Amino acid sequence: MASETDPRSMRSREAILNAARELLLEGGPTAVTHVHVADRAGVGRATVYRHWPQAEPLLVEAMATVPMPFLDKPTTPTRDWLRRELTAIARQLELDDVRAVSTTLANTALWDENMDARRAQFAGILADRLAAALDDAQARGEITLALTSRDAAALAIGPMYYRSTIEHATADSALIEAIIAALGTWSTD
Amino acid sequence: MASETDPRSMRSREAILNAARELLLEGGPTAVTHVHVADRAGVGRATVYRHWPQAEPLLVEAMATVPMPFLDKPTTPTRDWLRRELTAIARQLELDDVRAVSTTLANTALWDENMDARRAQFAGILADRLAAALDDAQARGEITLALTSRDAAALAIGPMYYRSTIEHATADSALIEAIIAALGTWSTD
Repeated sequence: MASETDPRSMRSREAILNAARELLLEGGPTAVTHVHVADRAGVGRATVYRHWPQAEPLLVEAMATVPMPFLDKPTTPTRDWLRRELTAIARQLELDDVRAVSTTLANTALWDENMDARRAQFAGILADRLAAALDDAQARGEITLALTSRDAAALAIGPMYYRSTIEHATADSALIEAIIAALGTWSTD
Repeated sequence: MASETDPRSMRSREAILNAARELLLEGGPTAVTHVHVADRAGVGRATVYRHWPQAEPLLVEAMATVPMPFLDKPTTPTRDWLRRELTAIARQLELDDVRAVSTTLANTALWDENMDARRAQFAGILADRLAAALDDAQARGEITLALTSRDAAALAIGPMYYRSTIEHATADSALIEAIIAALGTWSTD
């Protein structure tokens, strides 16, 4: 394990993370491989392996430094926005790399403080954004929520996460519509 | 790695799995440690480590050989049975060992065929049982389902799984009631 305080080691770590972030934004999760990252960062492949023996934790770290694209900037009608966002999350969760990253995050967070902080950050952002959007929708009379808005992320994302990582299947539009209906009574129903 | 075909290695593997299963049934997931398993199986600790370097995959294997206790033998009213079962699952998912096992299963299944078979078995049992119970409840007029019964496991267990493994928090009764309501219109509503 490279020292976390050695300046040269810290510089290569930073270069690797920057390269991983660039590759993630350019080509999605599948682009973040040891070979590509080493090339882009201008370091040897062994250096990448020394800092991150496996690709998933590197991808988790890189993901934590890019803006989370989901459930951001709600538009009205809220139900249409929500359907688009949940569908986008469902499509991401069909990718093997996203499955790998999310299950690595959940698993490694149990014993790695740094990873646990990423998990908490990730969960907090999603829960906060969805709660804010649904509170606003309720204030506008679009929906009467069936649960507190902070519980909405578990009810909305949980089924798609389980479908992807435990059932290894697709969250289709029927499941997404059932999720949207579960959040409350929509005024246009 | 011990050979999977060497008879002596297979015998010790079997003894270790039997010991793990016994300990699991007697003391729950926390009882399945390398030390306890070695003692019970009458093998050296190094032998346990050789077959299972980490405790979670051993626990996953042991769990796969004991009857799954959840969502089994539905009683009526179905809603009361479902509330009890979901509450029992939620309480299990609060245990660190169950978190570890379920996230190890989801993560390792992505590259380990044997673990993937366990995952599929686990997911299939839960989905089948819940679908059968809900189909029967609908036939009896207890509920009009809001989704196909095979989607019910994702909608019911997914939020609790996400709450436990991503949000690291408790699925309280409000969330469980929201899940039950999401499955359909209950005739007693």
